[in-house]
Amino acid sequence: MTFIPSGPPMAPPRGMRDVLPDATEALAALTSRLMGTFARFGYRRVTTPAFEYAEVLERGMSNVDRAEQLRFFEPGTGELTLLRPDMTPQIARIVATRLGHLPPPFRLAYHGTVLRRRKGRARLARQSTQAGIELIGMDGDRADLEVIGLAARGLEAAGLERFVIELSQVRLGQQALEAVPEPLRVRAADALARKDTAQLEAILSEGRTAKRTRQRLMRLTELYGDRSILGVARRKLRDEASRTALDELARVTEALEDSGLGDRLAFDLGELRGHGYYTGVSFNLLADGPGEPLGGGGRYDDLLGRYGRPSPATGFALDVGHLQWALELAGNAPKAERAPRWAVVTGDPLAGTLRSAGVEVSEVEGPLKRALDFARAWGYDGAVAKGRFERVDGVARKGDELDEATLAFVRGE
Amino acid sequence: MTFIPSGPPMAPPRGMRDVLPDATEALAALTSRLMGTFARFGYRRVTTPAFEYAEVLERGMSNVDRAEQLRFFEPGTGELTLLRPDMTPQIARIVATRLGHLPPPFRLAYHGTVLRRRKGRARLARQSTQAGIELIGMDGDRADLEVIGLAARGLEAAGLERFVIELSQVRLGQQALEAVPEPLRVRAADALARKDTAQLEAILSEGRTAKRTRQRLMRLTELYGDRSILGVARRKLRDEASRTALDELARVTEALEDSGLGDRLAFDLGELRGHGYYTGVSFNLLADGPGEPLGGGGRYDDLLGRYGRPSPATGFALDVGHLQWALELAGNAPKAERAPRWAVVTGDPLAGTLRSAGVEVSEVEGPLKRALDFARAWGYDGAVAKGRFERVDGVARKGDELDEATLAFVRGE
Repeated sequence: MTFIPSGPPMAPPRGMRDVLPDATEALAALTSRLMGTFARFGYRRVTTPAFEYAEVLERGMSNVDRAEQLRFFEPGTGELTLLRPDMTPQIARIVATRLGHLPPPFRLAYHGTVLRRRKGRARLARQSTQAGIELIGMDGDRADLEVIGLAARGLEAAGLERFVIELSQVRLGQQALEAVPEPLRVRAADALARKDTAQLEAILSEGRTAKRTRQRLMRLTELYGDRSILGVARRKLRDEASRTALDELARVTEALEDSGLGDRLAFDLGELRGHGYYTGVSFNLLADGPGEPLGGGGRYDDLLGRYGRPSPATGFALDVGHLQWALELAGNAPKAERAPRWAVVTGDPLAGTLRSAGVEVSEVEGPLKRALDFARAWGYDGAVAKGRFERVDGVARKGDELDEATLAFVRGE
Repeated sequence: MTFIPSGPPMAPPRGMRDVLPDATEALAALTSRLMGTFARFGYRRVTTPAFEYAEVLERGMSNVDRAEQLRFFEPGTGELTLLRPDMTPQIARIVATRLGHLPPPFRLAYHGTVLRRRKGRARLARQSTQAGIELIGMDGDRADLEVIGLAARGLEAAGLERFVIELSQVRLGQQALEAVPEPLRVRAADALARKDTAQLEAILSEGRTAKRTRQRLMRLTELYGDRSILGVARRKLRDEASRTALDELARVTEALEDSGLGDRLAFDLGELRGHGYYTGVSFNLLADGPGEPLGGGGRYDDLLGRYGRPSPATGFALDVGHLQWALELAGNAPKAERAPRWAVVTGDPLAGTLRSAGVEVSEVEGPLKRALDFARAWGYDGAVAKGRFERVDGVARKGDELDEATLAFVRGE
């Protein structure tokens, strides 16, 4: 081999990670609660391919987002493909091309791994597990309310008590940026997204950006906070486009308040959400822990049209790993329900009997002491040999058959 | 954009596919049965990254296998990485580097997507979903018996009645190939694997392969069939290495017969299994349908050593999509258990009540007729508006509250 990698040779690539048994089970339990909540609201699961033609996915992306992609030439066809950074454009493609014969609304859910390059200097790839939904073909505030409400219900079902729904309206920033000279727009958007006012001023003074536009963009960096910010915005942004955009946000806010979510709301009117396909009311879900949003989403009314089937749409995705992190920090991570786990000394016929009773059984070469050491190291409940059931805490019981009392002992009842 | 792909622009890349709701639910139900069976035998789930450093994965690969990989330079680091074609080397790395403090045996299970390039002229990528297990740190026939037996139990739990376990012993072919001059070996292995005797003879006559070696390889192409093939092999392959290899296979065969699997066994002694890491008794699982094995596996006693922790090991993986195909052909696909699904006209307070009762509810803009059309198109059980519950078959019932009788109607009881 001629290529010698410079990375640590025995680790997964930087940004990727191995998930060991306890964590895998915890994430599976969490994902299953989320997907169960989505199903109760009529969201059916679909599975999307791990990569897509670049040309297809890029219909939904801005230039900024393209820098975040992992792309390669598929060696069989020479075609440029992307590892999926996000499943929303794939779902849009599937609805437009595969499900067009069905009546709207389309309620679709998904979970799976996405890959994107991290922002910032190192730009390493990062793998994360997303669980999300898309509501396609239903317009009006009712769709926004359903989607944002379902995001909150998902977090609640997962056991998260403290979180914030930070609402935004991306059209405000998009409209202001349209008046910025094209060569500066991407950098200005980036500075606005980071609320870096010094950087934003510097960029805008480079080009011949109208004073009005500069003022408006600078204002957007300050328009975040509690519900009162909507009133402030209405006074400061008086053009008709802004007014329409703010009215939408205000109606959705009221509907969320009516549904009991008022205490969870915050606002950030400078948010742009990236991804180039958002068109209206959108949101981030925030909680202590990961230092990044747990997830977010919003309206993307133009995306389906790019795949040939114009439709209003909104949706969201959660980063399941981030959510797990927030739950652990809150001391509230859902315990993965698990069957009793026992080590049985190899050859003991009780192994089969225990399995039939729903116990997870590992066979381990005897004697009992060794099986018990195995049980302790692997977090099992106990070990069995020759009719002696011994729990890892030392409590033991004789039992040649798996009668009711013995089974209760095995189950820790 | 300067690059115009030649593929159909609105489809997933060739070899990839979208999985729509019914199929996604069916595959999830099947995967869950398999993983449940593996858990009952003590196999704990781990999750591996979607790609790995090429240098790490290639420790377990032969040259032939490398041609099957999808590789790219990770843009953040410039390091050569592979999309995982198989999870076994990743599990070996995890055991060697992350779980070394735990006592053996290591029983680990996994499911997820793998990507590899198809064999043959087009060499397109193909995505498949694998579910599998690895048993590491346990040697002897008992480990082979456990793993092959568990593969059979997995298929049985999935509902497959007719399948064949085709046993092989890769050392027979490997030993014979060692005596073939190096430049011809890869092509000879390929011809042997395809039982292409004309091609194999042509390749062997190119180089100065000893007559003995040629005879032996030609014999291996014929040594397949029922249990009697073991006796034939014992007469034809009389050197000590072959004898030892055949003895192992005979002992595992007897143990499988003792455990009641005798009727399912077939043999193929020319099998090499590819992947470069198999070292002993191995197997393919065959059934009518996909035209490729449903899965397979075997012993790989050298692989853990390549990651710094020598250990005997064996395992297998199933292609869940292939298994689903075989089950459908046999008319035996497990029905995904699902909750009742009802459409409710938007705004009707019964939506919440039904959800609390475990019903999956989609809200659809009224009138009832439209909600019923939606229900029929999407395979729902019925629709509700203003106290009228109507099933898609036309049977209806009044009910302003969800009393016991109404709930039974909703559930189709």
